[in-house]
Amino acid sequence: MNELDFERFLKNKFSFTRGQGIGDDASVIYSEGTQQLITTDLLIENVHFRLRDIEMKELALKAIAVNLSDIAAMGGIPHYFYLGLGFPKNLGIKELKQFFQGLKNGCQQWNLELAGGDFSKSSQLCISVTMVGEAEHPVYRQNAKDGDLIGITGQTGASALGLKLLLSGKSIKPWSTRHQKVVPCLQEGQILAKYANSMIDVSDGLVIDLKRILAASGKGGHLYYENLLIPRAMKRICREYHLNEYELVLSGGEDYVLLFTISPENELQLRQEKISYRVIGEIQSKQDQLTITHNGKTIQTENNGYDHFNMKS
Amino acid sequence: MNELDFERFLKNKFSFTRGQGIGDDASVIYSEGTQQLITTDLLIENVHFRLRDIEMKELALKAIAVNLSDIAAMGGIPHYFYLGLGFPKNLGIKELKQFFQGLKNGCQQWNLELAGGDFSKSSQLCISVTMVGEAEHPVYRQNAKDGDLIGITGQTGASALGLKLLLSGKSIKPWSTRHQKVVPCLQEGQILAKYANSMIDVSDGLVIDLKRILAASGKGGHLYYENLLIPRAMKRICREYHLNEYELVLSGGEDYVLLFTISPENELQLRQEKISYRVIGEIQSKQDQLTITHNGKTIQTENNGYDHFNMKS
Repeated sequence: MNELDFERFLKNKFSFTRGQGIGDDASVIYSEGTQQLITTDLLIENVHFRLRDIEMKELALKAIAVNLSDIAAMGGIPHYFYLGLGFPKNLGIKELKQFFQGLKNGCQQWNLELAGGDFSKSSQLCISVTMVGEAEHPVYRQNAKDGDLIGITGQTGASALGLKLLLSGKSIKPWSTRHQKVVPCLQEGQILAKYANSMIDVSDGLVIDLKRILAASGKGGHLYYENLLIPRAMKRICREYHLNEYELVLSGGEDYVLLFTISPENELQLRQEKISYRVIGEIQSKQDQLTITHNGKTIQTENNGYDHFNMKS
Repeated sequence: MNELDFERFLKNKFSFTRGQGIGDDASVIYSEGTQQLITTDLLIENVHFRLRDIEMKELALKAIAVNLSDIAAMGGIPHYFYLGLGFPKNLGIKELKQFFQGLKNGCQQWNLELAGGDFSKSSQLCISVTMVGEAEHPVYRQNAKDGDLIGITGQTGASALGLKLLLSGKSIKPWSTRHQKVVPCLQEGQILAKYANSMIDVSDGLVIDLKRILAASGKGGHLYYENLLIPRAMKRICREYHLNEYELVLSGGEDYVLLFTISPENELQLRQEKISYRVIGEIQSKQDQLTITHNGKTIQTENNGYDHFNMKS
């Protein structure tokens, strides 16, 4: 049973009559006019982060930012959030205050409010954030159309590179920072909401997240590796440390850039907007299949990305 | 720094302009007509439960029910919820399916929908539920009035007794069941919303939760111990196992009955409704002070109840 099977299991078991529930970046509660968006994300110590790699303030910001990225991927505006905090005994008031200072900084940076929460002891630090926002026209994963172009608002692989280096004891900038500091593409999401047919944030890896759009839309796709943004410094560090560049770029997670599909006509209009993006592929009618080529040569990916749900059946 | 200090720290640091945020059973998002209620609760393994004491289905029901109790304490109706689930590797698909079956049963029992969530690995089982509901006239903690009667919809101490017995290796019914199975007072809450001035659910202990009403309202109170419902079987088992009855009844947590204050005139009307409750005390103007007597003799409580927030400053 993998994550997609699990999602299918849940969607069959739990229907949602008030809007669109399980299966997108955020749920949408239908209402007249603007739609309410709600999304929730967990950050768990030694799964999503190690305390030695990140300061409490940065961690609080990251817990907010990963949720903002989900709101961004729906083309929405975030408003307020709820915090569930399981806090270990070995951390003290100082760390707790730093955490809440980070949360406060996030509120100021992104114009958010903390609306409520729950606090508990815990043996590992566990952070649950539920974010509430709104969108006039939410962009779903499921509406990719034949002939759509595939676009992306930034680079992939930098966060995974930073993480790999951190895990081997090296903190090399800017890569370690790219892992610790999530920059949600809120403005980009709101612009793209006017033009894109489908959208997702790249949280678990470019390939796995693109496959989520394809599966939800019942489409296939072609990705041109040479169109991706891969800085020379990244290529160099991959060679130096014998890291697989393809794996980092295609399957490394936590990039939090936006991946979208757009009709060629709308892409022409998007060029007039203040947004930086690249066209990296196109949607094809062939169902659920993804081809990746690098200068005409097909690439096989062994590892699709981070699958949180990897359990023996 | 205790829980009340912590709440004060948070309320000072984080304001909420869209309604009432931190400091009640659920947040209230103001809107025209019906108000939206949102509340969140964490359940963490070895803090809130031990896996050996509770089945996965019951645990899922409990994770929902503690949130429903918060909605009930605002006089609200619950509608849908979000689940954050940190799931340990030593549990398998079987346990996971049982958990979701419990969730499904809860949806059917309380007419709820699962709207979204997040799943992660974890070293300890960690369950975060965020519940969304609504209330026409939410009942807050802060509106207790001089001369109000203090009422309660059921018994306290039974869950704590069940827990004490479980922790010493004894599973004696009905006490163990009272600990494992939370019955949220949703209908009672909706009836009380028409009459009560203030309300809270007893989750951390009768005294600590009553003190929360008093502190929020800037009032004092008198509690008559002899008015509390204490079944003979409970008195007997306390004697048999040398357990402190006062401590269980006054400070034992997780009862999830509703504690409310009501004007004497409204209490007369409440008697006509289909609801079971007892009058156990009265609100006095003396600020923040609580007197407890048992047949005229003052009781001093050493332990107020469960304080999740107990940290060295």
